[in-house]
Amino acid sequence: MKATVIHGPRDIRFEDLPDPTIMHPTDVIIRVSAACVCGSDLWPYRGAQPISGPTPMGHEYCGIVEDVGRDVRTLTRGQFVVGSFAASDNTCPHCHHGYQSSCAKREWVSGAQAPYLRVPLADGTLVATPEVPSAEFIPSLLATSDVLGTGWFAADAANVKPGATVAVVGDGAVGLLGILSAKQMGAERIIAMSRHATRQVLAREFGATDIVTERGDAGVARIKELTKGVGADCVLECVGTQESMWQAIMATRPGGHTSYVGVPHGVMLDGAQLFFSHVHLHGGPAPVRRYLPHLIDLVLKGVINPGKVFDLTLPLAQVAEGYRAMDERRAIKTLLTM
Amino acid sequence: MKATVIHGPRDIRFEDLPDPTIMHPTDVIIRVSAACVCGSDLWPYRGAQPISGPTPMGHEYCGIVEDVGRDVRTLTRGQFVVGSFAASDNTCPHCHHGYQSSCAKREWVSGAQAPYLRVPLADGTLVATPEVPSAEFIPSLLATSDVLGTGWFAADAANVKPGATVAVVGDGAVGLLGILSAKQMGAERIIAMSRHATRQVLAREFGATDIVTERGDAGVARIKELTKGVGADCVLECVGTQESMWQAIMATRPGGHTSYVGVPHGVMLDGAQLFFSHVHLHGGPAPVRRYLPHLIDLVLKGVINPGKVFDLTLPLAQVAEGYRAMDERRAIKTLLTM
Repeated sequence: MKATVIHGPRDIRFEDLPDPTIMHPTDVIIRVSAACVCGSDLWPYRGAQPISGPTPMGHEYCGIVEDVGRDVRTLTRGQFVVGSFAASDNTCPHCHHGYQSSCAKREWVSGAQAPYLRVPLADGTLVATPEVPSAEFIPSLLATSDVLGTGWFAADAANVKPGATVAVVGDGAVGLLGILSAKQMGAERIIAMSRHATRQVLAREFGATDIVTERGDAGVARIKELTKGVGADCVLECVGTQESMWQAIMATRPGGHTSYVGVPHGVMLDGAQLFFSHVHLHGGPAPVRRYLPHLIDLVLKGVINPGKVFDLTLPLAQVAEGYRAMDERRAIKTLLTM
Repeated sequence: MKATVIHGPRDIRFEDLPDPTIMHPTDVIIRVSAACVCGSDLWPYRGAQPISGPTPMGHEYCGIVEDVGRDVRTLTRGQFVVGSFAASDNTCPHCHHGYQSSCAKREWVSGAQAPYLRVPLADGTLVATPEVPSAEFIPSLLATSDVLGTGWFAADAANVKPGATVAVVGDGAVGLLGILSAKQMGAERIIAMSRHATRQVLAREFGATDIVTERGDAGVARIKELTKGVGADCVLECVGTQESMWQAIMATRPGGHTSYVGVPHGVMLDGAQLFFSHVHLHGGPAPVRRYLPHLIDLVLKGVINPGKVFDLTLPLAQVAEGYRAMDERRAIKTLLTM
């Protein structure tokens, strides 16, 4: 098959790779219905994360079960499935606590920007839909696999409850779906931090009530101003830099909750400063598997339409342009069709 | 009056100071019934925290109301009161959320290792007992003012619930009362990290079910071993150093809760490492005022006896020896009588 491989910074190639095959009896091979480019794919793309050699890319996926390992119990050929970027057995103590992305047997899924994908620990990782969905649902179902699951975790980890005042740092696809998630969880006020007109439109459509264009200290001051000097109850940090982390922490009221869901790059937190901020801090790789059944249900019932974050659709062969458009912020998120 | 003043590292003097007077109409002057030395007093004593000049010491107190400012509404001369080290109005939004130690009008109380003390924002800061308690209750009531309130916050911030597996890093007075607090909150298993025989005895008396004497990576490994590889649900960090913070975080299971209640000294947290630990992190200056009514009630009903942490009692004039004994770990905590 032809698939996506990164060779170095800004060097994405669409090239021949062997078709994936069952390697372990708990594997499944799926025929990918659609794939996409993740904000986290841009870290190695931009050279901010080392690449040890040519690496197949992509970890967001949905598709049709094509081949099934002999120990797989719950899945059959022809089913439509969605999975998480973190394969999990869904039976270990961490999974039972809802932290499948820290499963004792966790494997990172990769190689999803391709026509076919091997998914390890398939029984624990994949969720099948009741029937094969119609094409219109594909973008939103694909979104549940990571970007929505991560935005949902951001809102959940920030303890968003009915009536809460929420701020979201970062207007990428995760931040935008953090807004959608906070709205679903009953937030009364949702402050989006964004300077991009097109993203502000989507932020408002997903539920943002206020837009703050300032950043850093000025952004924090503006959130304090909007909350009568108190700070937000819940702040979702959806970027992963030192500046965005402190912006999020400082915009949270004492006793409020800050979540962070993007792998922090070069972030160091001063213990004493964190101590006096008095915030709750929670984050990590989103346990998407915990949320998948609920999120798939919300999509199939038409309650949410997270697929709207895909504002660029390209055939898989043009994946390199999909990366470029996101890197240059010409696109929020690129959908790749097969 | 003669009172306690620090002049420099290891230079504690008992010397003449003016009697405190009402400075603001919301102040109260109390006649201190008993005072004590805090673990946090040892930071400047050991030179680990700068001292700008001679500074009156002490922030844990209980006593009899002696004089009342003209705007004080709820307190009268002769009442027995306990207060927090953080004066708060108990009416601002942060106070309403239960974070009185981040009150918008917060003032740090100091000068309590003395016969008389000025307490600012008295209506919001002090809690009066129904009647003047008998002498036997004084040590435990004094403990509620900081060391128990802080241990209680440690357990609460670590989300201790009935059935939880808890680990406590630090066997100082706060750690020991963190054990007592976790027990009160229904913890099933409480692992105390301690290498000191006398402290282990008190730890067990307060509710510890296991003792771990290893530290650092070996301590973490031992906790993993005791919890079948999972880690503790709740870990209370009651020291404030880089080593103890990581020990606490690494001993917590993914999705579990780490609390920290001592001002971190020289602690830097790597964002990516924290991210993949998957813990909830919460701490800060304990909002003792939130817990005081409940804790005073537990003491007066004889349910808890936190005063047992005082294993050295000295007359106030010998306060310097009280510091020395704690610094040299000859005493867990020094009670100062008037």
